[in-house]
Amino acid sequence: MMSNLIALQSRLAQTDCSALLLPSSDEFLSEYARPRDRRLSWVSGFTGSMGAMIVARDAAAIFVDGRYTEQATRQVDSERVEVCGFGIAAQVAWLQSRLGAGATLAIDTRLHSEQELRRLSDALRDARIEPVLQPRNLIDEVWLDGRPEDSRASVFDYDVRYAGLPREEKIATARSRIATRGQSLLVVADPEDVAWLLNIRSNDSREALARQSLSDPVSQFRVPVPLSRVLLPAEGAPLWFMDRSRLEPALIAALEGMVTICPPDDFDAALARLAEGQRVAANVRRTNHHHATIVQSAGTLENDAGVVAARGIKHENEIAAARHGHKVDAAAVIRFLAWLQDSVGKGTVTELDAAEKVTRIRAEHEEYLGPSMSNLSASGPNAALPHYVPSPDTNRVINDHPIYWLDSGGQYLGCSTDNTVCFAVGEPERKHVLAHTLVVKGWLALGRARFPEGVDSSQLDSFARQHLWHHGMDFRHGTGHGVGNFMNIHEVPHIRREIDHPAIAPIVAGMIISNEPGYYEEGDFGVRIESHILAVPSQFPGYLEFETLSTLPLDPNLVDETLLDRSEAEWLAAYHDRLVDGYRDMLDGPSLTWLENIAGKFRAMALAKGA
Amino acid sequence: MMSNLIALQSRLAQTDCSALLLPSSDEFLSEYARPRDRRLSWVSGFTGSMGAMIVARDAAAIFVDGRYTEQATRQVDSERVEVCGFGIAAQVAWLQSRLGAGATLAIDTRLHSEQELRRLSDALRDARIEPVLQPRNLIDEVWLDGRPEDSRASVFDYDVRYAGLPREEKIATARSRIATRGQSLLVVADPEDVAWLLNIRSNDSREALARQSLSDPVSQFRVPVPLSRVLLPAEGAPLWFMDRSRLEPALIAALEGMVTICPPDDFDAALARLAEGQRVAANVRRTNHHHATIVQSAGTLENDAGVVAARGIKHENEIAAARHGHKVDAAAVIRFLAWLQDSVGKGTVTELDAAEKVTRIRAEHEEYLGPSMSNLSASGPNAALPHYVPSPDTNRVINDHPIYWLDSGGQYLGCSTDNTVCFAVGEPERKHVLAHTLVVKGWLALGRARFPEGVDSSQLDSFARQHLWHHGMDFRHGTGHGVGNFMNIHEVPHIRREIDHPAIAPIVAGMIISNEPGYYEEGDFGVRIESHILAVPSQFPGYLEFETLSTLPLDPNLVDETLLDRSEAEWLAAYHDRLVDGYRDMLDGPSLTWLENIAGKFRAMALAKGA
Repeated sequence: MMSNLIALQSRLAQTDCSALLLPSSDEFLSEYARPRDRRLSWVSGFTGSMGAMIVARDAAAIFVDGRYTEQATRQVDSERVEVCGFGIAAQVAWLQSRLGAGATLAIDTRLHSEQELRRLSDALRDARIEPVLQPRNLIDEVWLDGRPEDSRASVFDYDVRYAGLPREEKIATARSRIATRGQSLLVVADPEDVAWLLNIRSNDSREALARQSLSDPVSQFRVPVPLSRVLLPAEGAPLWFMDRSRLEPALIAALEGMVTICPPDDFDAALARLAEGQRVAANVRRTNHHHATIVQSAGTLENDAGVVAARGIKHENEIAAARHGHKVDAAAVIRFLAWLQDSVGKGTVTELDAAEKVTRIRAEHEEYLGPSMSNLSASGPNAALPHYVPSPDTNRVINDHPIYWLDSGGQYLGCSTDNTVCFAVGEPERKHVLAHTLVVKGWLALGRARFPEGVDSSQLDSFARQHLWHHGMDFRHGTGHGVGNFMNIHEVPHIRREIDHPAIAPIVAGMIISNEPGYYEEGDFGVRIESHILAVPSQFPGYLEFETLSTLPLDPNLVDETLLDRSEAEWLAAYHDRLVDGYRDMLDGPSLTWLENIAGKFRAMALAKGA
Repeated sequence: MMSNLIALQSRLAQTDCSALLLPSSDEFLSEYARPRDRRLSWVSGFTGSMGAMIVARDAAAIFVDGRYTEQATRQVDSERVEVCGFGIAAQVAWLQSRLGAGATLAIDTRLHSEQELRRLSDALRDARIEPVLQPRNLIDEVWLDGRPEDSRASVFDYDVRYAGLPREEKIATARSRIATRGQSLLVVADPEDVAWLLNIRSNDSREALARQSLSDPVSQFRVPVPLSRVLLPAEGAPLWFMDRSRLEPALIAALEGMVTICPPDDFDAALARLAEGQRVAANVRRTNHHHATIVQSAGTLENDAGVVAARGIKHENEIAAARHGHKVDAAAVIRFLAWLQDSVGKGTVTELDAAEKVTRIRAEHEEYLGPSMSNLSASGPNAALPHYVPSPDTNRVINDHPIYWLDSGGQYLGCSTDNTVCFAVGEPERKHVLAHTLVVKGWLALGRARFPEGVDSSQLDSFARQHLWHHGMDFRHGTGHGVGNFMNIHEVPHIRREIDHPAIAPIVAGMIISNEPGYYEEGDFGVRIESHILAVPSQFPGYLEFETLSTLPLDPNLVDETLLDRSEAEWLAAYHDRLVDGYRDMLDGPSLTWLENIAGKFRAMALAKGA
């Protein structure tokens, strides 16, 4: 890493710029950048999902939020790189103190959204630091040897059995929306929007599965979507900027006459040509500054998040596939849990052992197409970090602490899963049981809620927090997020407190959202449970309720029945009885016995409450 | 009314304008305009609180929202005035169909906020109708005879025992905030902000009480605040534009050397002079377009709602006065309820009878300073209208329907009350008990909530609705509003669903808010209960809870104990026991007996739940 930083600084000294800004994002503003785009990691050694670095000729700093401070300090060369807080203010302050007024900062306009870069440029100019905005990056001149190749995973026609609507219908709807608004062009700059719109997916996750090191659960997963963009004119075929050689022949045939496949390098020129003098729709949060500038130079840019909004409302085919995929996946997780309880009774199990095991069990099923996320396998104090991913450095023996949780998921045709189970592997303390019971009560309150269709998603957030709040407790992450279909597990809408968050949206039938309250006591322990819930019509017209898609057991040893009301206890008993019935044919004998034992304990709790 | 309209139309024919817009607001954008400013009512006969009228030379229309359609139809001369839906679109559509393109519409810029008038002007120009914006009104040229005088009620020094902080501290804080922002002037255009900032109140409500016709509860109340404005320069004394002759000598003495009293007519010139070349802070939602234009012509207008935000957080003196005032007021309401139950057993009681009675009982207490609102006294189908105010036209006999509610309040030094009680005066039906019980459960959920300080007020809204939602029911008004201190009962913050509503604010300790869920079945019945709750620190640092300030009994005959959980039943029993103890010395024998009987029924309910 040190030599990478030095190489970059040497190259920087040959330019007119005083420093260079390196965000963790790629030019698609992806949540998970592919390895060849992890420039920040290559220069710094930092592997967290979010951060930024400023490299000057003889100084450097990395900017990370609180959850990554410790990890960054451990991973970077602390003699050469300062670890600072996240955000524009910290970056500007560092530049002012290190370089002073009059400095110039090179910024790659492909790696920032329009909105973000406008704010940053304003702050820099206020501090008399000159941003140098260009759609290129010095790192790309020095990171040559050993830079990972682009994905070559094939791209296939995603069958409507899993995709829902045919692509021609989705295209027609998008086209008619922009036409209604008098716009001439829709820029689809988010690869996930493209995959949804064109009904295509890639074999990236299958390949990741095939080549995976199961003991390295962290970096193995890939979003099964090719990095590509679409230009959809109000008239004429959509232009898909995608490497044709990766497309399966059947897909090429299916797109014939409907979608024009163009070389990715032609995108900028085509955008400039089609935007000329026109009103252009684009999701400004997912269109990078470079492309936004091309549009603004040629025509008018108008914000439109219509594709991502449509993507969040699942078709009946998607819902049927999700019900099936969640069942297959949950059976694997139940087998894992039974294995875990058995194994910690016989010997030591580490977080990484467990992370590997759950992937192995999932991989036994023929429908499993790879992991949907890193396996967050967390014990004791590590479990107090909501986004903890185990590594050899941090790997704990699960037996050493009563509380363990696993947040993991798989890819299936029609379904991406992402669930969290939390179990005691030893004798839990009173505080563990209290925290977990309050989390369960919040999970029940959200999962059992009934509400008017169209309620803003933020309105449901406090249901999940209310019981924690009552004890002066809370959690600092969102309560839930929309979930992709064989795609990125994170989508619009989110259920969260922040009423001005861009992912707050009205809840309508067909949305699949995670329900994942937790509680974290720093340096001590943490608990979280997570399932996916589907908004469905209730018996009352105009009112929705949730169907729990990922039905996984809770740990009765972590539930204080005196804190449950009777209807909660009855609901939990019936839920676990349904689990036994539903998974009976999918479990081996010991796993089924283990699950029956759990269900029995919840039945006993309900009886004790007078049910 | 007809002759008023004709007089206005004759005058209009002598001008260049095709039509005239008349909103219900006054030049202070008051929620409740004083009688001399009720121009809309003078022309149309419509007495509702919100609406607008367009008068053309030989046509006219009134624009009201759904709740007022029936009332407007009854009150206006329907041969001359069309009744239309509320809002800009309806107004523009009417102008287009009646007058066509090229028409001109006179608009009094004093009666609209900047924001509202910008939207209206844009819509008019799109429809090729020319707005003629002037700070004057044709009505003021024809409404001469019989126009009510301005209030002459005296204005007094509002003691810090009730006001909380001394005025010099409030002024210093406001001044330092604008100075920090580099602003040179604060425009305080809202008379309620002025009253809070300068610690002044008027005797308007006392006078209203003195001259009231108790059988006319509708129009008797006045907000005890003079209509005035302040200009607060970053340096130098604040200028209070107020008729000096209304000020009590003690107030003039108290303000000496601290506040400069200026003739109201000098306001525009002073504003133009002080704004010249300066950055000027003003609450744009409460500053009329005429004054906003003066600022924008001279300098820069910057939005600042700091005074109204500070006003919503009560000082310990205000809180002590509120606790006391609510107790005095609730004792009167309890006496009223005991009287009502007794009286409907002996003979007929109408909505207006009841409205008069509660005011008479309140007025027996020496601390009562007049009503804080119209008495919303509602039975049966009238109770299905959340904002129903009885009139001789609509007056129902309460005995004719089992459900009755009364939403009323009084003014006291340091406290404005506003509470709703709902009782059965006959045998309630199953649907009445269900609706009321669900409303009680929501009222309990909000009133008993504990939550992190600073949570957005919208986050608490769903607590009050959740039990109704579960049965496919809801109510269409906000759950709560901030409450003034011997002032307008409506303030910031509101607890409501709409996350983009301007009155949504973070909840902090010291806020007093109403808790008023309801349920309304059109044409059939309605229920509501309302109390005021104070945000106070809980036993957990950083977490707040509510103290119920207005403790009023619920009707046990309208509560289905099978729908309560045990902790709700226990809470209700303890609450009513506290009422008996708390009001024992303030009630006559029959009222106390009546209250004891209520408390006994709630105790029995708790026992039945196993308490």
